[in-house]
Amino acid sequence: MEKFDLHILGCGSALPTTRHFPTSQIINLRDKLYMIDCGEGAQLQFRKSRLKFSRLNHIFISHLHGDHCFGLPGLISTLNLLGRTAELHIHSPQGLEAQMAPILSFFNREMTFRVIFHEFNTHTPTLAYEDRSLTVTTIPLRHRIPCCGFLFAEKPGLSHIIRDMVDFYQVPIYELNRIKNGSDYTTPDGEIIPNARLTRPAAPPRRYAYCSDTCYKPDIVKQIRGVDLLFHEATFADDAHARARETFHTTASQAAEIARAAQVKQLVIGHFSARYDDETILLNEATAIFPNTVLGRENQCFSIG
Amino acid sequence: MEKFDLHILGCGSALPTTRHFPTSQIINLRDKLYMIDCGEGAQLQFRKSRLKFSRLNHIFISHLHGDHCFGLPGLISTLNLLGRTAELHIHSPQGLEAQMAPILSFFNREMTFRVIFHEFNTHTPTLAYEDRSLTVTTIPLRHRIPCCGFLFAEKPGLSHIIRDMVDFYQVPIYELNRIKNGSDYTTPDGEIIPNARLTRPAAPPRRYAYCSDTCYKPDIVKQIRGVDLLFHEATFADDAHARARETFHTTASQAAEIARAAQVKQLVIGHFSARYDDETILLNEATAIFPNTVLGRENQCFSIG
Repeated sequence: MEKFDLHILGCGSALPTTRHFPTSQIINLRDKLYMIDCGEGAQLQFRKSRLKFSRLNHIFISHLHGDHCFGLPGLISTLNLLGRTAELHIHSPQGLEAQMAPILSFFNREMTFRVIFHEFNTHTPTLAYEDRSLTVTTIPLRHRIPCCGFLFAEKPGLSHIIRDMVDFYQVPIYELNRIKNGSDYTTPDGEIIPNARLTRPAAPPRRYAYCSDTCYKPDIVKQIRGVDLLFHEATFADDAHARARETFHTTASQAAEIARAAQVKQLVIGHFSARYDDETILLNEATAIFPNTVLGRENQCFSIG
Repeated sequence: MEKFDLHILGCGSALPTTRHFPTSQIINLRDKLYMIDCGEGAQLQFRKSRLKFSRLNHIFISHLHGDHCFGLPGLISTLNLLGRTAELHIHSPQGLEAQMAPILSFFNREMTFRVIFHEFNTHTPTLAYEDRSLTVTTIPLRHRIPCCGFLFAEKPGLSHIIRDMVDFYQVPIYELNRIKNGSDYTTPDGEIIPNARLTRPAAPPRRYAYCSDTCYKPDIVKQIRGVDLLFHEATFADDAHARARETFHTTASQAAEIARAAQVKQLVIGHFSARYDDETILLNEATAIFPNTVLGRENQCFSIG
């Protein structure tokens, strides 16, 4: 199966701790990298991941709080020092370019590449990005400021040719791409061989959902139903239920409720408040509701699907 | 002896590596903290040092390159989240406020404290800061943009009272402060007891010099002569001598030449280029010239003097 990995670069929240970096993740789909959020230190953690900076072309920023984007000036300046030439695209709610562009132009004598900012609206699910193998759709969330999560959905792959059947019917090579795309095959004698006899279906497309930062928002369930992996913020434990509501964050049990209602395959929780020296309490509260939950951890890699 | 420590938060240079943070240090003089440079991740390393954020009131920025100041927005936002009320002073070459103020006001809904920017000229040694126990003077350096190092000089302490002599002459308590400050004592009979008989001199004041980033600049020697501890950048080894000159950086041997000429007590080298997986080559080249050299290392603490 082709690579579809989640690398966690940071899963803490705004206040620094000795154990966590602020939020940043990298999705590796077939060796193309996509960054989600870029908290301070993201480039250091990126380097630690041993992934290649040059494979990154798109960054998705959930919302304009510092712990989700203060790593951008450093990362972009580093790409510039490395002599990057490819365009870098940054997708975010409105307002990021106005903050970042002056900093980038002041601190980089000249840019060797273009940084292109794209704004998405945060009210309705929107296609933020699409290529041959992937779509990225926003997931409207509810936080103190406009905020979206992201649904990374692999596109359906091509069917797999069944070698023996193709040989048996002596299918010419130039027909194979059409057959992979679903066509039947007509023999020189006019016999129609149905596609299903010549191919096995592609692996089902895989999906990853990232939901942070947000208060408990059950209406996201319809958008993330059945995803292979859900990252959901779980800033607080039940004892800080009121604080979670006040600050528009989610408790671990609420994150697990979302995962259960959406029947996701696995839940990773993160964006941990600095008040927890040990997140076991969050894990316990979540697994009581949704057993297949794991704690996010820096430098951890999950295979999606 | 009262505390005068150097904590190294980061001693890498601009490109991230798996082993170094970009430049930042903290001076702890009698539990008052002074930060020198504030590269990305400084607040994370600060937290790791277990020093108290609330003890920091002054930050000195050597020059406006990102690897020396991209940690400021995160650190300041964190101090704000913590509800700080005391003013924070940032001393730097011209231009920092124009870059930082818009970011701070956008990313912090309201500030609970004032950030006050002070600019120093980078051409002549200038008193940047002074309090009861310390002066901080700029050390003009030569880099691609205006840049200064900093000389932290403890002020001479008060003399120590010799208890036995004070008892012998029945010196009244209210005279003691004057005597600590150097006065002689006149007995009720009019006899003058010279200060030197009543006191032992204070420990000699200690000094720390920070010199980064700069090309080899021997004329700083006169300003840092005899310091207890010198931090000097040593971005490159001898094999990259030309590269050092081009980029206005120093080699390890050149840093050691400075240390030797200035007869400093100890040299710490840092601001290591990402090209070195292991800085032993830099250490070897430096110790060949100035034996009492050590490699900077993250989370390391040096006692000064």
